[in-house]
Formats: sequence, C-alpha cells, structure tokens
Amino acid sequence: MPALPQPQPQDFDIATVLHALGDPVRLDLLRRLAVDGECTCSPEGVTVARSTLSNHWRILREAGVISVRTSGKTRLVTLRRQELDARFPRLLDAVLDEVDRHADIA
Amino acid sequence: MPALPQPQPQDFDIATVLHALGDPVRLDLLRRLAVDGECTCSPEGVTVARSTLSNHWRILREAGVISVRTSGKTRLVTLRRQELDARFPRLLDAVLDEVDRHADIA
Repeated sequence: MPALPQPQPQDFDIATVLHALGDPVRLDLLRRLAVDGECTCSPEGVTVARSTLSNHWRILREAGVISVRTSGKTRLVTLRRQELDARFPRLLDAVLDEVDRHADIA
Repeated sequence: MPALPQPQPQDFDIATVLHALGDPVRLDLLRRLAVDGECTCSPEGVTVARSTLSNHWRILREAGVISVRTSGKTRLVTLRRQELDARFPRLLDAVLDEVDRHADIA
C-alpha cells in the first residue's frame, strides 16, 4: 500500500488541528496513541463502525495529528507528537491533561 | 433582551471547546476578544455575513468560550478567559500564541 498523504509541519494549520481534535472519538484515539504509542487502525475497545473510524483517522492524518505507515497488510498509526509540540507548543499537553483527567474519572 | 444561555464551567467539554475553536473565523473572533476585551457582536473588519457571524457567536457561546450581555439594544461579547484557563490550563494560551504569531506574519 502506498504511504498516505500527510502535511509537512510548516503546513500545519491551527484551525484544522483544533477541528480534528474537536470530537470525542478522535480525542479518545489521541489519548490511546499518547499512552500506547503506535497502534493499529482498529484499536481494541473502540466501538464505532469501521467506516466511521476510517473517517476519523483520515481527519486526524490530513490535519497532521497522526502518521500512518503500512506493515504487510496492517496499517499502523502514530501520533506526530514531536512535530506538533514544535509547531504548537503546549497545545497537545493541555488537551491530553484534560482528556486523561476525564478518563481517570470515567 | 434576556441573557443568552451558556454552560457553567463544570459543564465545559473539551471536545466541544476544541470544535468551537477549530474554525478560522472563530479563531479571529477569539483573537480580537483576547486583544480588545469586550466587543460588539459585529466587530469592525469582520467581513462574513451577519447570519454566519451570528452562528459563529452561538457556537462559541454554547461551548463556554464567550459570554454575551445586553446593553440597551447592543449585545456585547467577552471571552470567558478566567473560567477557561481554570478549567483547561494552558489551552487558550497555546491557541492564542499561534493565532497571534499568524496575525503578525499576515
């Protein structure tokens, strides 16, 4: 499978990144990636339909939040943490602090 | 005019706030409020249609980002900075840093 297109850090757009993060399912995916590191496109415990999940990954990838690589027949997803932190300092920390706090309470 | 409904800080939701901020026009409104303090619902230099602007204010208000009060026939908008900073530390700072940087370049 060819590599899926993703923006370069200099093309990251704050409105696009905030929009990508502004959804409860995508925030859950973000938290999993931050905790677990690389994961498959269908992480355990995520109960949304496959096509919906695929759409969420696309929105995150096109915003520059995640990177997708292929390994055999599997697609593996990672958070572009370092690039996001360099481009938008403190943003991911602020979001993940709240998402983690919420996960702890739930 | 009656006060327009807005959430209490304990009901602020991170996904809803990020979604509210994830739009270039709403980010511009946020920057103006952060710089100028209270402003009218039709700030100078904002060129979007009145109904579109009204919709942007509603999304920001319902997320808890702004507060709207009436003075005679005028609606005045303020950023709920203190409440947002208390609920989501560093989030607004991170977003405004980038929005300001972008405004400086433009």
